Amino acid sequence: MYTIIQFSIKTPGYNGKVGLEDMERKAYKELSREELQQLHTQLTKEYEEAKTKGLQLDMSRGKPSVTQLDMGMDIFDVLNAWSDMRSMEKIDVRNYGVLDGLTEAKHMMADIMGVSADNVIVCGNASLTIMYDTVSRSMTHGVMGGTPWCKLDRVKFLCPVPGYDRHFAITEHFGIEMINVPMTPQGPDMDMVEKLVSEDESIKGIWCVPKYSNPQGYSYSDETIRRFAALKPAAKDFRIFWDNAYAVHHLYEDRQDEILEILSECEKAGNPDIVYEFSSTSKISFSGAGVAAIAASKGNLEYIKKSMTIQTIGYDKINQLRHVRYFKDFEGIKEHMKKHAAIMRPKFEAVQQVLENELAGLQIGSWTKPNGGYFISFDAMEGCAKAIVAKCKEAGVTLTGAGATFPYGKDPLDSNIRIAPSFPTPEEMAMATDLFVLCVKLVSVEKLLAS
Amino acid sequence: MYTIIQFSIKTPGYNGKVGLEDMERKAYKELSREELQQLHTQLTKEYEEAKTKGLQLDMSRGKPSVTQLDMGMDIFDVLNAWSDMRSMEKIDVRNYGVLDGLTEAKHMMADIMGVSADNVIVCGNASLTIMYDTVSRSMTHGVMGGTPWCKLDRVKFLCPVPGYDRHFAITEHFGIEMINVPMTPQGPDMDMVEKLVSEDESIKGIWCVPKYSNPQGYSYSDETIRRFAALKPAAKDFRIFWDNAYAVHHLYEDRQDEILEILSECEKAGNPDIVYEFSSTSKISFSGAGVAAIAASKGNLEYIKKSMTIQTIGYDKINQLRHVRYFKDFEGIKEHMKKHAAIMRPKFEAVQQVLENELAGLQIGSWTKPNGGYFISFDAMEGCAKAIVAKCKEAGVTLTGAGATFPYGKDPLDSNIRIAPSFPTPEEMAMATDLFVLCVKLVSVEKLLAS
Repeated sequence: MYTIIQFSIKTPGYNGKVGLEDMERKAYKELSREELQQLHTQLTKEYEEAKTKGLQLDMSRGKPSVTQLDMGMDIFDVLNAWSDMRSMEKIDVRNYGVLDGLTEAKHMMADIMGVSADNVIVCGNASLTIMYDTVSRSMTHGVMGGTPWCKLDRVKFLCPVPGYDRHFAITEHFGIEMINVPMTPQGPDMDMVEKLVSEDESIKGIWCVPKYSNPQGYSYSDETIRRFAALKPAAKDFRIFWDNAYAVHHLYEDRQDEILEILSECEKAGNPDIVYEFSSTSKISFSGAGVAAIAASKGNLEYIKKSMTIQTIGYDKINQLRHVRYFKDFEGIKEHMKKHAAIMRPKFEAVQQVLENELAGLQIGSWTKPNGGYFISFDAMEGCAKAIVAKCKEAGVTLTGAGATFPYGKDPLDSNIRIAPSFPTPEEMAMATDLFVLCVKLVSVEKLLAS
Repeated sequence: MYTIIQFSIKTPGYNGKVGLEDMERKAYKELSREELQQLHTQLTKEYEEAKTKGLQLDMSRGKPSVTQLDMGMDIFDVLNAWSDMRSMEKIDVRNYGVLDGLTEAKHMMADIMGVSADNVIVCGNASLTIMYDTVSRSMTHGVMGGTPWCKLDRVKFLCPVPGYDRHFAITEHFGIEMINVPMTPQGPDMDMVEKLVSEDESIKGIWCVPKYSNPQGYSYSDETIRRFAALKPAAKDFRIFWDNAYAVHHLYEDRQDEILEILSECEKAGNPDIVYEFSSTSKISFSGAGVAAIAASKGNLEYIKKSMTIQTIGYDKINQLRHVRYFKDFEGIKEHMKKHAAIMRPKFEAVQQVLENELAGLQIGSWTKPNGGYFISFDAMEGCAKAIVAKCKEAGVTLTGAGATFPYGKDPLDSNIRIAPSFPTPEEMAMATDLFVLCVKLVSVEKLLAS
């Protein structure tokens, strides 16, 4: 059993007072005003002490840690000055050409997504860029022959919330109106999705992270995915933006989420063109120097290639070949991801344990316990998230900005906070989470006292 | 003195008949109808024989040769499993971050363009993609706060002709109307450029390859560049798209074109924001796996970054570092390019010698003799280019499609043909050019006979 006790920054007084300890174990809303005031005094003291520690920790983004990056260094020995630089089809990868990616790279990315290589275009270093380009192309050239979105009065996207800030930033950048759809542990609220897309022709897309969702770590249920595949949108050019960012990013050997493969579900439902799937090795090999891909129906791919062949002569095939030769096959990727899991798990567990130890029963916050992905989602009492993030920042721990998980950076309840355990060490994660729970308590008490 | 005699595919009869030889040396238009018919019979016979040779040569694109690519293989030993993966500023290049490029990569690309590193953003693998993205962003988000071009009724670009087909393809793809501007050995016809941009607010840009232009290999004169810098366009959001693709791509040690640095000229002229400059190492290191960059004023860069920060978390910094560590500095790049020149020169000279030997005095074609770049531009008699390219193709030599050097693929005179000597060997180039001149002669004779 993993323990984080030794990493705690608790001040002596913090655990020392039995009375306070008992008080903390009661739900805060059950405490009397006097008890709350007493607690506030104590927590303020602890917070002031914490500030003197000079912490400098960043858990704002899903950045891989140095240890994780070090695990992939052998990839740089795969291609050397004496390497055969030809692909399996004897294409010189150093030269121009091959718009849609090396065949072996298509297979690698197809395996990660569980689709056929025929449905894949392998691109550059970032799936985010493919998503941006996909929206941008839809603005200027429409979707499979439809009216360019920039010629329409209104274009809207559905945004399951909480979600990924960079998705929302893309649609906001293009002036696309975003509509919040609540997430559930089974995926987005499908009653709402079905109703909205069937009624409103200006709704052109929905952002989805179907597996180990960002930030909650939820994976869409089979029913959710089948309902997505069977959508009957009013807009013919409606597309599901299926960002399968964490397809192989499990934390455990024995608890792994698996989801239905969306392309074949859409095809079965008679909706082959309704989805774009995105994936990358950014969190498999290297962030920013990996390989990214899009998977879609052949109709979609043909339309995409019409713009792509104008935008580029071809993506970096050398890096594609480097990846294929390093990982060899899907088994190689899965083995590599086991090593990642081994270092990610303790970080997640450090957070979970501090949250459990410190907040269980207090009814001032709830949090997710994902089996994979890069994040833990924390919901504070309404109206507390911004203040908690600010207090953490003041004491040296940077969290993702409160509200970032919602379109326009506006969390209507000011409640959700994304915790990103990937970059710090487990020790740092525990320290950071200790401060975090202290801030959660302090802000919650202040909120209750003010109400 | 380089000689290509031994590579000639001339059939025995071709040089054997003294009478015909003399006839060929006269300008074709001076020949009598009978002489033309006699020549036609002979050339047709030679062409039929040439077709039996089973040639399979491609000089359609400016692709580097295998020998040239082999020269850069040591770059793959620069980063290995034990390398320090931190930049000069101790940034871990394997992780996310650094939107606008590593500082040392900015310096590398700045040196190639002759600008300050402060004016540079280093991007992905292709300058073509930066150009496409720049036009695309102007369509959806305008230029430095101006109206998005997609909201305007008409957007036009000036296109110096002959020019680069992929430039024209970008503007055509976005529905931008293209206006031909004739090229001269000093650059585009500046009287026409000045007049058009000052009168027509819908003209938003001009495509330029200022050094060793594609396809003519012309370099803009100082006067041309100063006139560009001093342009007074009616459109505030007019931009010069300055594709400095061949900045260090000289063919000779002793004959090197140099051009004025456009950014500082524009600044001096009080027009700091009027230009975007593009560059890449695609033809220095590897096509498709190099590093590309844009240079512009700080005002432009800030505006570009507003979109770029939505489009990507960062470009491939590992490849940026690999390039910097391999080339070390600008001297390293120049030394590397001397090696390229040594293998490019014989190819260009093979073409020049065959053209000179076979076509001089016939008045059926003229061609450029560039000091650098990737192309030779050939102007056939009016109405002959398509037929020449088709005849070459039929006999196994693929040239760039006739018309490709003009917007919409339409050469009004059907005259211009781009010759790309970079990929084949000198021997192959001589063989291909032998066939080419045969086709030029044959088509020209047919044209004269038909008139």
